[in-house]
Amino acid sequence: MYTQAEIKDFILNGHLHYVPHVSIDCAIFGYHGQQLKILLIKNKFIKGWCLPGGYIKRTETLVKAANRIVKERTGIGNLFLQQFKTFGDPDRAKTKDFDEEKWFEKTGIRITKKNWLIDQTISVGFYSITDFEKSVPKPDLMSDECKWFDIDHVPRVEFDHKEMIREALQTMRIHLYHYPIGYNMLPEKFTLSEIHCLYETLLGKKLDISNFPKKLITLGLLKKLSEKRSIGAHRAPHLYKFEKAAYDKALKEGVVLS
Amino acid sequence: MYTQAEIKDFILNGHLHYVPHVSIDCAIFGYHGQQLKILLIKNKFIKGWCLPGGYIKRTETLVKAANRIVKERTGIGNLFLQQFKTFGDPDRAKTKDFDEEKWFEKTGIRITKKNWLIDQTISVGFYSITDFEKSVPKPDLMSDECKWFDIDHVPRVEFDHKEMIREALQTMRIHLYHYPIGYNMLPEKFTLSEIHCLYETLLGKKLDISNFPKKLITLGLLKKLSEKRSIGAHRAPHLYKFEKAAYDKALKEGVVLS
Repeated sequence: MYTQAEIKDFILNGHLHYVPHVSIDCAIFGYHGQQLKILLIKNKFIKGWCLPGGYIKRTETLVKAANRIVKERTGIGNLFLQQFKTFGDPDRAKTKDFDEEKWFEKTGIRITKKNWLIDQTISVGFYSITDFEKSVPKPDLMSDECKWFDIDHVPRVEFDHKEMIREALQTMRIHLYHYPIGYNMLPEKFTLSEIHCLYETLLGKKLDISNFPKKLITLGLLKKLSEKRSIGAHRAPHLYKFEKAAYDKALKEGVVLS
Repeated sequence: MYTQAEIKDFILNGHLHYVPHVSIDCAIFGYHGQQLKILLIKNKFIKGWCLPGGYIKRTETLVKAANRIVKERTGIGNLFLQQFKTFGDPDRAKTKDFDEEKWFEKTGIRITKKNWLIDQTISVGFYSITDFEKSVPKPDLMSDECKWFDIDHVPRVEFDHKEMIREALQTMRIHLYHYPIGYNMLPEKFTLSEIHCLYETLLGKKLDISNFPKKLITLGLLKKLSEKRSIGAHRAPHLYKFEKAAYDKALKEGVVLS
């Protein structure tokens, strides 16, 4: 995967290419068939699981860095991506099973106390949503596993990543009321029942009425097609598709969908 | 205000006390009598106005740092405070009227190219809301003015602060649908009409119905008192107050208010 020379260059000279003191952590949610999952990675030297993350190149904007990190882990670019919160507690990187000295010993690279990876780091949290069936999870430089976990059965995660997952879910659920969602998560043409299921799964609760799809239609974000899908005897619901220009505008400016 | 020795110590040794590469910028909104304002500062060496900001002490959490900055500028502590977005574009600090070299020349302090204030900075945006009548605006170390501007008549602002104000307003308006607001901005006991006005002013639009106050009552966040306020012949609307425990819980977990 990565050579020892690449790892050494990252540890010793990373601060020349990346902004020190700032990292990105990504809560990558996966949706498929009414299931909601989250992508976690297993660092070689840390006991529990972590959110995938990385650093920001000195030439990149935050969103470009987050896109790169999400694409590296999932194999998919240009996903739905939003910031949820930035984490900056001086104690946030402490975890009882992580011994920094041993960690660096194992890499076989000698570092000084001034190394850029040692000092305090503030992490910008982004969340993303994709179709987990389409993704090809891939571990990073320091990890040996990267896989999807059901959102209700997340294993032990390290550092402040449990709080990150909670905050990412809370912000994602608030955003569902104000930004359109579904593009790249649903087939190009879909039924109202399919988008209703997407909302229920992401919100983690049953919805009494189809408020969201209805409001999407009212706001011109969803277009009814003449085409229908046959799903059984006497059952052929209309298909819908997103109006991309209106969708992108709403994504930028925000709307009220409830 | 600040001595030359204090300024010199901040410029030369600030990185020992503050986290380098990360700053905080605060969009402090002020509400009073159906008016919405924003607090801006005038740096001594920069032409336009800026949002008040600062750095994060190595011993502080982000929210503690933001609270300190907001308190230093307004004189008021423990205000309603939320993150809205973190800004990290390598070009974000560029502005045509800001000459870094001249800036440092004017302070009379010689610095090297390795100085912590020179390198790329990522800024965490917090917004806050207060009653501007209660505040005592105070300039910071590098500024000579700090004052309120009507939200519809903001003067020219530097760097990416125009985008910050737009993003802070957009997030604040989304948050109004999901977090209770009004504590410390309204008198302890208030009429439904007063809280309705607060929502209209913050949202920047007329509301047809009192959805927000009604929903606050339904969710147990607002309590009707037997007490009434006399506001004229035959007019004595009931007074209400916030249920602080439910209010704080909703502030932490989020609700749906629309």
